[in-house]
Amino acid sequence: MVVELISVGTELLLGNIVNTNAQFLAEKCALLGLSMYNQTVVGDNRQRLKEAVDTAAGRSDLVILTGGLGPTEDDLTKETCAEALGCRLVEDNHTRERIQEFFKNSIYKEIPENNWKQAIVPEGALVLDNDNGTAPGLIMEKDGKRLILLPGPPGEMIPLFNGQVEPYLRKLRPEFLVSRMVKVCGMGESQVEDKLLDLIDSQTNPTIATYAKTGEVHVRVTAAAPDDEAAERLLKPVVKEIKKRLGRAVYSIREEETLEMAVVRLLKKHELTVATAESCTGGLIAGRIVNVAGASDVFKEGFVTYSNKAKRKHLDVSKGTLKKYGAVSRETAREMAIGGAFATDSDVCVSVTGIAGPDGGTEEKPVGLVYMACCFKDNVTVEKYQFKGNRSKVREYAVVRALDLVRRTILENCE
Amino acid sequence: MVVELISVGTELLLGNIVNTNAQFLAEKCALLGLSMYNQTVVGDNRQRLKEAVDTAAGRSDLVILTGGLGPTEDDLTKETCAEALGCRLVEDNHTRERIQEFFKNSIYKEIPENNWKQAIVPEGALVLDNDNGTAPGLIMEKDGKRLILLPGPPGEMIPLFNGQVEPYLRKLRPEFLVSRMVKVCGMGESQVEDKLLDLIDSQTNPTIATYAKTGEVHVRVTAAAPDDEAAERLLKPVVKEIKKRLGRAVYSIREEETLEMAVVRLLKKHELTVATAESCTGGLIAGRIVNVAGASDVFKEGFVTYSNKAKRKHLDVSKGTLKKYGAVSRETAREMAIGGAFATDSDVCVSVTGIAGPDGGTEEKPVGLVYMACCFKDNVTVEKYQFKGNRSKVREYAVVRALDLVRRTILENCE
Repeated sequence: MVVELISVGTELLLGNIVNTNAQFLAEKCALLGLSMYNQTVVGDNRQRLKEAVDTAAGRSDLVILTGGLGPTEDDLTKETCAEALGCRLVEDNHTRERIQEFFKNSIYKEIPENNWKQAIVPEGALVLDNDNGTAPGLIMEKDGKRLILLPGPPGEMIPLFNGQVEPYLRKLRPEFLVSRMVKVCGMGESQVEDKLLDLIDSQTNPTIATYAKTGEVHVRVTAAAPDDEAAERLLKPVVKEIKKRLGRAVYSIREEETLEMAVVRLLKKHELTVATAESCTGGLIAGRIVNVAGASDVFKEGFVTYSNKAKRKHLDVSKGTLKKYGAVSRETAREMAIGGAFATDSDVCVSVTGIAGPDGGTEEKPVGLVYMACCFKDNVTVEKYQFKGNRSKVREYAVVRALDLVRRTILENCE
Repeated sequence: MVVELISVGTELLLGNIVNTNAQFLAEKCALLGLSMYNQTVVGDNRQRLKEAVDTAAGRSDLVILTGGLGPTEDDLTKETCAEALGCRLVEDNHTRERIQEFFKNSIYKEIPENNWKQAIVPEGALVLDNDNGTAPGLIMEKDGKRLILLPGPPGEMIPLFNGQVEPYLRKLRPEFLVSRMVKVCGMGESQVEDKLLDLIDSQTNPTIATYAKTGEVHVRVTAAAPDDEAAERLLKPVVKEIKKRLGRAVYSIREEETLEMAVVRLLKKHELTVATAESCTGGLIAGRIVNVAGASDVFKEGFVTYSNKAKRKHLDVSKGTLKKYGAVSRETAREMAIGGAFATDSDVCVSVTGIAGPDGGTEEKPVGLVYMACCFKDNVTVEKYQFKGNRSKVREYAVVRALDLVRRTILENCE
């Protein structure tokens, strides 16, 4: 069963808002096993909306439209869809009563005249009560085609979808789709694909697709099957093979687990505490760790030591090291990590020092040069990177690599 | 001139990512005076992409495509667009050299074989150098139709658009549009609109539009005129009036200036240094400040004091205060700010302590409760907030408000 989305709203065409509705609905449809090949955005214009609805209904079994159900004159979605399916518009008494009820406790003394328009529905449509606004959702079926109309504000659309549309779609669903995400850090997308090429090419069920994120690659494995158990049987050996090929670069196979969550999970597992000593990343590593709920069990404190003075005072980096090798050096990174672990009495301390740019680069030490170190008990690992991109890109990559350095250090020492 | 967007990527159809590229490009095109009536999302599928390109090129003068320029087999945008316009594909030596250069200092020992695919371009296309990746942007022109191909990652797409596509489009533009952005912090969007309602309603040139961002509101004032000077004459009195009405809530009228840049500018202007003492924001305030190029002039060090012990050790928060009022309290925030200023010998220190959730909330101190303080020489201002949303939303709002607190403190004390 093929579904597509039409988002209606001039504010999307002007870039006033981001289309988060499309992301929400696309993810939901994927999880329901519906195939989506197209998404469209059109403005509040009858002719272009009609064209979009006709095209979508022509090539897909199911079209979900959001927006254009408001009370104003330029809200045309309902009228246009009725025209496309050849339905009359009739007044719905139940909805009329709900609108009356909605305004009873509102700040308005009188119901604005144009709100009554929202009680008009296509004849035969399934009306979905909207508890958060005056525009009901609508499901229209005709000649094997289905149009689902939902209001644009996410605060109305999402509860309507979850409460009434999802149960409706579950009944139509042809097949179960289950997917696993294999999350990888420390390899580029093409490197990952190289290692999985034969699998990607030969697999049809499950399918395998790679996605590049900043400093990470995600591999999605999706199986279609009549039930959850059968899907699991299809997924398991493929995920196992991918994990085997990519080795320790795989940091998680949990959909919702981020890199920092994986790091915190490992720290908790081995009952370790972690500290941070940051220069060019300026607190962002600590920020990522603290973003994990429950991080307080493993993270006590961090330093942002931007100046040499701060590096000396808090991390005990020696004057001689700073003078001889400079603040951005293998030696300084090493002493920062050791000093940070000592000062905070933590099991692990990760340090980063580098040149984020745009200024400060030299021929010998160009912009993007970053040293990072991880002190684990008495061992220190130091790594050197040359990142590409602007200041914030260099820092983003450094943060991801530093988190991954903590992860790899724990794996090497504890597992 | 009519423009439309095609976003290419199965990850959009699966709802793995939000289409922020479409919002960015739509906003830019609106500012350039280009009309947009359609946006489309298609997957990495040759036939459907071809249909989308044919439809778009048939009804619009200009089509901007993002995504599908990567090195892998399912990246098909370039090939499909060349087919749609009937162009051959040829190797571009310049791009080949750039790819070589890109990998020279990278972590990869060898250039993955499939990356060379990115040096193949449609014959006659204008090649746009990408400083943040290996896929160049491409501009194809034929029979009055224009296709602009940009890589999908925003970190590559945005600099390419700003640096090379925007100047190209400016030349095609039917009319001069000049705009100013008035950036506001500390007021909600409806509050801002209330204050500007008569201006928004009555103005036609320049036009005024508001955009809500996290913790901020941006007011864009756009004038159409035959030349820059005439546009300036239209803009100046309106921007002046908006600034007058919104007062100190306006932190910048510079398009490219972020809140943290405005803070660093003020610090430099008054020759002040700043330190941070963060609990629930976990280093993100320092991270934002350090993201400003040249921040090292004003920012020396910061503390992430997540545990009570760290708050006592580094910031000298008294045991009695933590015991009597708790870590999340007006009193602790105050002592953190004073202690941070003292420990780092900085003129200004901002502190944040709060309950980001999802756990740790009580009836008395619910999730979202955040105290922040700013110590300026001998004065301390403490503010209490109750933010809505999940853990990362609470922290994002807290970071914005804390940066703004530094800004307002400097204004009140120095200007």
